[in-house]
Amino acid sequence: MPVEAETGAQTQSDDLRELRSVRGGRPGDRYIRVVEPFAAEFRRRAPGHLIASERVLRPQGGVGRIADLLRRVVIGRRIASEAEAQERIGPFKGLAIFASDNISSSAYATEEIMRVVVVAGAAALAATLPLTFAIVAVLLIVVVSYQQTIRAYPSGGGSYIVASENLGVGPGLMAAGALLTDYVLTVAVSVAAGVAALTSIFPALYDQRVLVGVGFVALLWIGNLRGLQESANIFAVPTYIYLVAIFGLLGYGAWLALSGSLPAYHAPPAWTVDAPIGALGLLLILRAFAAGSVALTGTEAVSNGVQAFRAPESRNAGLVLILMGSLFAIIFTGISFLASQLGVVPDPSEQETVISQITRTLVGAGTPFHYLIQLSTAFLLILAANTAFAGFPRLASILGKDRFLPRQFQYRGDRLAYSFGIMVLAVLASLLIVAFGGSVTNLIPLYTVGVFIAFTLSQSGMVVHWWRLRGEVRGWRWRAGLNGAGALATGVVAVIVGVVKFALGAWMVLLLIPLLIGLMWSIARHYQGVEEALAVDPKGRALPRRVAPRVLVPVSRIDRATLNALAFATSISGDVTAVHVSSDPDDMREMRAAWEQWGGPVNLVILESPYRAMLAPLMAYIDATDRANPEEPTTIVLPEFVPRHFWEYPLHNQTGLRLKLRLFFRRNTVVVDVPYHLG
Amino acid sequence: MPVEAETGAQTQSDDLRELRSVRGGRPGDRYIRVVEPFAAEFRRRAPGHLIASERVLRPQGGVGRIADLLRRVVIGRRIASEAEAQERIGPFKGLAIFASDNISSSAYATEEIMRVVVVAGAAALAATLPLTFAIVAVLLIVVVSYQQTIRAYPSGGGSYIVASENLGVGPGLMAAGALLTDYVLTVAVSVAAGVAALTSIFPALYDQRVLVGVGFVALLWIGNLRGLQESANIFAVPTYIYLVAIFGLLGYGAWLALSGSLPAYHAPPAWTVDAPIGALGLLLILRAFAAGSVALTGTEAVSNGVQAFRAPESRNAGLVLILMGSLFAIIFTGISFLASQLGVVPDPSEQETVISQITRTLVGAGTPFHYLIQLSTAFLLILAANTAFAGFPRLASILGKDRFLPRQFQYRGDRLAYSFGIMVLAVLASLLIVAFGGSVTNLIPLYTVGVFIAFTLSQSGMVVHWWRLRGEVRGWRWRAGLNGAGALATGVVAVIVGVVKFALGAWMVLLLIPLLIGLMWSIARHYQGVEEALAVDPKGRALPRRVAPRVLVPVSRIDRATLNALAFATSISGDVTAVHVSSDPDDMREMRAAWEQWGGPVNLVILESPYRAMLAPLMAYIDATDRANPEEPTTIVLPEFVPRHFWEYPLHNQTGLRLKLRLFFRRNTVVVDVPYHLG
Repeated sequence: MPVEAETGAQTQSDDLRELRSVRGGRPGDRYIRVVEPFAAEFRRRAPGHLIASERVLRPQGGVGRIADLLRRVVIGRRIASEAEAQERIGPFKGLAIFASDNISSSAYATEEIMRVVVVAGAAALAATLPLTFAIVAVLLIVVVSYQQTIRAYPSGGGSYIVASENLGVGPGLMAAGALLTDYVLTVAVSVAAGVAALTSIFPALYDQRVLVGVGFVALLWIGNLRGLQESANIFAVPTYIYLVAIFGLLGYGAWLALSGSLPAYHAPPAWTVDAPIGALGLLLILRAFAAGSVALTGTEAVSNGVQAFRAPESRNAGLVLILMGSLFAIIFTGISFLASQLGVVPDPSEQETVISQITRTLVGAGTPFHYLIQLSTAFLLILAANTAFAGFPRLASILGKDRFLPRQFQYRGDRLAYSFGIMVLAVLASLLIVAFGGSVTNLIPLYTVGVFIAFTLSQSGMVVHWWRLRGEVRGWRWRAGLNGAGALATGVVAVIVGVVKFALGAWMVLLLIPLLIGLMWSIARHYQGVEEALAVDPKGRALPRRVAPRVLVPVSRIDRATLNALAFATSISGDVTAVHVSSDPDDMREMRAAWEQWGGPVNLVILESPYRAMLAPLMAYIDATDRANPEEPTTIVLPEFVPRHFWEYPLHNQTGLRLKLRLFFRRNTVVVDVPYHLG
Repeated sequence: MPVEAETGAQTQSDDLRELRSVRGGRPGDRYIRVVEPFAAEFRRRAPGHLIASERVLRPQGGVGRIADLLRRVVIGRRIASEAEAQERIGPFKGLAIFASDNISSSAYATEEIMRVVVVAGAAALAATLPLTFAIVAVLLIVVVSYQQTIRAYPSGGGSYIVASENLGVGPGLMAAGALLTDYVLTVAVSVAAGVAALTSIFPALYDQRVLVGVGFVALLWIGNLRGLQESANIFAVPTYIYLVAIFGLLGYGAWLALSGSLPAYHAPPAWTVDAPIGALGLLLILRAFAAGSVALTGTEAVSNGVQAFRAPESRNAGLVLILMGSLFAIIFTGISFLASQLGVVPDPSEQETVISQITRTLVGAGTPFHYLIQLSTAFLLILAANTAFAGFPRLASILGKDRFLPRQFQYRGDRLAYSFGIMVLAVLASLLIVAFGGSVTNLIPLYTVGVFIAFTLSQSGMVVHWWRLRGEVRGWRWRAGLNGAGALATGVVAVIVGVVKFALGAWMVLLLIPLLIGLMWSIARHYQGVEEALAVDPKGRALPRRVAPRVLVPVSRIDRATLNALAFATSISGDVTAVHVSSDPDDMREMRAAWEQWGGPVNLVILESPYRAMLAPLMAYIDATDRANPEEPTTIVLPEFVPRHFWEYPLHNQTGLRLKLRLFFRRNTVVVDVPYHLG
């Protein structure tokens, strides 16, 4: 490398001759430095502006190279920030990434409704299709509303942004907290549901379902670290297989129904429908509506991720949103229609799904097509989690940018994915799966309430948005009216879901959201406080005049490491004192004698420690010297010996490390590490 | 405190006026510093020699004060090193500390012999008393041998010291490895045996025996941290209760036997002695001898701990050794004698001990005296572990001083106990108890082989010792003969134990000892290598001439923390460059503009990082500047922002920490932390 680099430097030396080297500078002088032979690692853009090449990332040492190789195999090659535009996706992949959550709901939405209304007797199952229409109506309102949001916020218009811009920070944080919670739940519920679908085919997996679930989360984690393009590649296949299979089923069913040749459906004799517990009253209808409204989860993701689409972003995102809504509406109503036509009864033991019953009736049990429907459903359910993996890190990065979450959420990894947010989501979802034993039944009541709170806040925000633009936008009235209808519809659903599911577990989410709001507020307040404390006021910008520091060098004996540190100390200041802490009279005598014999230009103070403590006397001595000259802060120069191998560390005194930790929390104390490397 | 301190300083200012302050020193000058008002924390012994008072240890802050209070309650007040002589013990406490392991063996030694010989039929039990005499004979030889060792090595003559001084380092390390292993086993076996004795009285504890065992180890840990005096106070009571009770039993039994009025012993009818498996051949006798020789464990501890005794150390230690040997010999033979006279048969189900049977026969089952014997035995067994707590840390500290073990073993805590060794012993013994499920039966075969290896090496070393002193010491012949007899006897036992117990588990120990030797060798070699690499040769002692360092300051923006660091950097050198790593074009533009506007005396280099890595471009830049001037090492000044509370750390970028870690392992790189504290 040096040869190569130097050759580069010679040919390009003019371009790289940017700084001129000076040796032995003195405080107050100003020099320019030459940094010549770095042609291989850097290109020069302007004076004092270098661009690092990928070479600076080259791993060093055997372990580093192996780690880098592994990383490349698992995550893929690094992508430069400039390549971001190519990392974006079109509608085809966008549908797979942002719509899989929503579309996967069609696998169970009909059944959720039927399970509630059947309480009022088999005849009440007739209410399934009307309820489906009601939910599809809400979905269409939401889709149309969000079309407007996407146009109005082409740089990404999640509920958080729309609510905070138009309604204020409080509602914005409420929407953010609700969505973050629901994204985590989406992953946990989807993966648990997918695993449940798999375990009904492979019962041997049942005992390991928590492990299998966490394993799928880990796969989603890695897949998403590979970046948007590749995670779309990985996850698009099952989505489209499901779509093709289910449309085949619906088309075949519709043809049979139209031609009047639907086969007869027979519920197994064991499935006795319980005697009606009550009439199909308003409460039951609301409960069924709330159960089915799980179908709307995931709709948010598209509007949050507009920036993930390639240009024209708004149009592509809008197209995906409409496609998603239409596909979902067709599948949902289709399944509800076929179920009603056939007179399907939900399996009380929850062993066979309604879709499986329909498929079995139409094409026969155990046929390849039956398996195709079941397997593609199972995988789609797991992949529904991927929508949350697209949404959560994006929302968290926006919150990080606004300082409501730690900054780490903003960082993008080697493949431009928000690595930290992806990790946090994977870890939280795994914890949820473990905590709830991988059970969908336990997790589902927590779900959906957050989504509808966010919907309502977002749509209300859009109403305010149009009102503000009333002078500038044509047709602001009908736009505001449309979003108002959306806000009303989703608000009503939010209240219904919150009330109906409250005791079952929604209370946890309704408790968590204010806690999250509080947390985000205090994080923002902390950053704000730090910002103010660190900000420089214009007139005080001159560097504080500083004299050469007062230096203390803790020494344990005279050796190369010590001399190295003393040499550095005397090079930065003339006011250097060596300090030796000891509790052994022989040691102190020897140290003094060795110091006198050495005769170097530094005074030695011996601190005798009758109680054998090493740090406390030193700290007290620093305090005492500080009291003598409070305005002159102390600099501690630490001789540090670095062994050849990291496993040799435990063999060496940890006093230095403990001292550093103590000094780090001491005000006005500069700590200088002067490492001495062996070999 | 300041007022008090200053008053002190005023009255004693002459005495404390030791160093004179100078501000604004320049490299090459030499100054004396005034450190005035520290009367409260330090006393002056000589110029440049201060003695820290206990005040320097005063805890700071609420948490510190609570921690200190807890520590004082649990461990006790600190003891100054000077008070060491008072911390030493006399023969009365010495017997409790150093003899409890050996004496506790009397609780089971007879039974161990009987369990082996009974295989050859009930009649073979008659061999118990002769075997007891044989083992007592070996014990007496060992005791007499060790008397000589104690006289010859008044500063502590454990097997390690004697063997390495006279036979060489290899045998010394073998003895050390064998003893360290056996000390750990002593704790595990003793505690497990004590817990077993307790669980036979309180069966409810049986399921928790691992937990109870680990709990007792923790108590021993704390008790020993309180120091020698106090652990003797705590642990002396059960030892002496056991001695009084057992001598009462033996005396009463002897009187009954002499007066011919021994009551008849009846074994429960269920205890049928199995038909003899074979005759009482040589192998069985050797096995019985090996089983009984567990009685000799712990004998080593006294000679290893001579320095724990108050003056005259050798005499006190010798007295304890003789007392221990005599007491043990009397109890052991007494019990074997009574067992033979009564014709006691060992309980095949291991539910009732031989001692319990004797007691029951002599004074009646369930009498208070019966309970006294059983309970004091149980506690003595647990306390036998205390002997190892006295021996292991001392041996480890000697090995630490000789650099065969990490230095930490040398440190003495607040109460002058070898805290680190005590901790290591407690942790290893707890792990053993957990690994072997708290079972004595599984642990015991590993035991004793190490002790006899150490005995043999130590006695052989003494033979060489006398041979070397043959011109100086009168009667060296009979002394050498005595130690030779000891070496022969213990050597034979070592071989017998090793062979007989090999397959049962002794192989683990015989494998572990060479591994330990190898480990200790390589630790010593490492320290030796470091020593040589760091040693200063006499002519090269002058400080290397060093110019003001070349300084790089990584900056993320212009704020107080940055300016603070830049101020420090310019105070120590005139050659300062600020480096800003960024991947965001807006950020780079803003940074450049802010820098121009600031107009400070430092150049800014912007490193553009297209792959978003923060550290790699910086490291490559440092490499490049180093290549330009390899002989001039780089100093990195890090602006560090310290939040008010430690829980606020995760909110701040961890880049600084990662950078420090990377730089620490880089050669010739000095890292300067300039912390900026809020508030």
